[in-house]
Amino acid sequence: MELSVSSPADFHVHLRQGALSELVAPHVRQGGFRLAYVMPNLQPPITTTEQALEYKANLQKIDPNVEYLMTLYLSPSLTPEEIKKAAKAGIIGVKSYPRGVTTNSDGGIESYETYYPIFEAMQENDMVLNLHGEVPSDAVNVSQHSKRRRFADFQREKNIHVINAEPQFLPHLFKLHEAFPKLRIVLEHATTRAAVEAVKSCGSTVACTITAHHLFLTVDDWAGQSWNYCKPVAKFPDDREALRSVIKEGVPPSSANSISLQTSLLAGHPRFFLGSDSAPHPAHTKSTSTPDHGCAAGVYTSPILLPLVAHVLESFGALDKLEGFVSTLGRHFYNRQLTGEETSKKVVLRQLPEGIKVQERYSTGENVVPFWAGKLIRWKIVGQ
Amino acid sequence: MELSVSSPADFHVHLRQGALSELVAPHVRQGGFRLAYVMPNLQPPITTTEQALEYKANLQKIDPNVEYLMTLYLSPSLTPEEIKKAAKAGIIGVKSYPRGVTTNSDGGIESYETYYPIFEAMQENDMVLNLHGEVPSDAVNVSQHSKRRRFADFQREKNIHVINAEPQFLPHLFKLHEAFPKLRIVLEHATTRAAVEAVKSCGSTVACTITAHHLFLTVDDWAGQSWNYCKPVAKFPDDREALRSVIKEGVPPSSANSISLQTSLLAGHPRFFLGSDSAPHPAHTKSTSTPDHGCAAGVYTSPILLPLVAHVLESFGALDKLEGFVSTLGRHFYNRQLTGEETSKKVVLRQLPEGIKVQERYSTGENVVPFWAGKLIRWKIVGQ
Repeated sequence: MELSVSSPADFHVHLRQGALSELVAPHVRQGGFRLAYVMPNLQPPITTTEQALEYKANLQKIDPNVEYLMTLYLSPSLTPEEIKKAAKAGIIGVKSYPRGVTTNSDGGIESYETYYPIFEAMQENDMVLNLHGEVPSDAVNVSQHSKRRRFADFQREKNIHVINAEPQFLPHLFKLHEAFPKLRIVLEHATTRAAVEAVKSCGSTVACTITAHHLFLTVDDWAGQSWNYCKPVAKFPDDREALRSVIKEGVPPSSANSISLQTSLLAGHPRFFLGSDSAPHPAHTKSTSTPDHGCAAGVYTSPILLPLVAHVLESFGALDKLEGFVSTLGRHFYNRQLTGEETSKKVVLRQLPEGIKVQERYSTGENVVPFWAGKLIRWKIVGQ
Repeated sequence: MELSVSSPADFHVHLRQGALSELVAPHVRQGGFRLAYVMPNLQPPITTTEQALEYKANLQKIDPNVEYLMTLYLSPSLTPEEIKKAAKAGIIGVKSYPRGVTTNSDGGIESYETYYPIFEAMQENDMVLNLHGEVPSDAVNVSQHSKRRRFADFQREKNIHVINAEPQFLPHLFKLHEAFPKLRIVLEHATTRAAVEAVKSCGSTVACTITAHHLFLTVDDWAGQSWNYCKPVAKFPDDREALRSVIKEGVPPSSANSISLQTSLLAGHPRFFLGSDSAPHPAHTKSTSTPDHGCAAGVYTSPILLPLVAHVLESFGALDKLEGFVSTLGRHFYNRQLTGEETSKKVVLRQLPEGIKVQERYSTGENVVPFWAGKLIRWKIVGQ
């Protein structure tokens, strides 16, 4: 059996910088994708139009055959003027990271109110706000513990931790959506039933990305297994079920105002689509913890992304939603619909009943290991 | 400042076998303990009186200065006759492991009803039932996933995972306690508020051990940090708070029937006491995951146990409960009260305001790394 998919688009990907970028940027296309929505959490983060355009030029040098959509990193240095400039220069979105929750997020935000002028400017200029939807844990963890906080400090904790960090964030999403109803907002890499329900309950300007790996993993998979550890952490089986269901789900006619009913029924819920959050880290930083230092957070899926998504959608009976999930729905939300000859640029997947082993390592100086390394996958790209 | 504690007793410890045992058994005493309640999950597991006595003799050869209380591994080969024989031979308890939830538990139990004749014999012979209180996760994890279960299988999942595995077990505890009200039962290494409340609500024959490391850790500490990964996994800040509170807690007069009021007020809740679950693993199995294989579950605290417990109790204002938690209460429940000259066998701790660094590694062929390696601890054993 073969399947063909129109020009797949990955609406959340980390393409890094330097040697690692040289290694991983070509994997976008290798994984079957034509469009990469590029995260700005470099060192230093991408906070200006100039930096973003320079970064885009670097990526185009590495692989000119991918459309790169660029983003800025939300930080106090950003101004409404810079937003206007960025929008004119074709930069699509601004990414918000809560402080300290993931890779290179030390400069992340602590409160949204101070950014309202930025959001106002983004709304006016039709830029997208991309939210890493987690609040920081407030527990005293062992590394902080040696500083000997008093018991009273423990009492003030609000019981926020990696498992409820996303549900605890959702009030911020609602508040932002209410304050800026025309601002397009994407809740990135949702991992919980609560997040799925929250996005569904919002208006048509709020969408949600889902990664490939969160369709596979639950908490048991990353407990003691560093290769499956990422932020947000994979949650419970019931949460995974909610992610799967919203992809399978047909859209009731009443919500299908902005996308034709026929397409949406084929595609799943129109505001939930793929953003891989594919995040490469050098292999030794993934494999190993020392007593002082944990492993890197991130799962790398780029080089096998389209076959992997086909594989997991097939496993829960949603293969018919593949094109919607990896191409049509995200493109619709981001106004990157295919036109003319682009529509015929298909990526062709062939089903392999016996499966094919995923390559265990990619290397050019740096080593990166993909998700599902050494395991079988039932789909292979045979034409693009 | 100095503190002296009467003959500390660790009511849950893994002393292993072979070379690892030679390395770690002497750490019981090094950590300030005189009594070790020894887990039977060897390879093969300790299922007969003879095996248990032979294991005890081995341990006594390694370090004769510790009192070893031995246990059997609950399995279908156990008979009421063997229970009678074991009790006569001075074996104290029987440990039940649910299948597959921790180290060497592949032979663990799946249902308790079939063991009722065993529990009846244990009740008659006053043996203790030690429960690893978790039900196995039922999610399809990634290793099983490649076997391609159908969607219908996912639908039948009950959403059981490492985070709710202990609360989900508690109905079994209640049922066993109801069926065998005179059987002494210990819920081992409690990690949740739900477990603390459950044990409190039971009668005086049900007790609970708490580890040192679960007084430090929450889920954020083992997320991506293999050295802090153990089973049961550490839970949420509110759960840790419940463990700390039950140690701090004075006992209301009405519940203080079996222990003198004065002692119990000093000691904390009379049915909650230390069982370290100290579980050594060779260092490389703790530090590293491969894509195929996660790290070993277990945290090693034996060599620093008493100073570590003093350190953490001090951090939440419960230093006055130290002797009750590490000696009096457990000994009372297990009928190992100190008599005569034993009472004067004190272990003396000295407070070190600047702290002292925990040794990073213990080695004799095998390497083991203790919890809190390289970090400061505020207490040191100066006499025993």
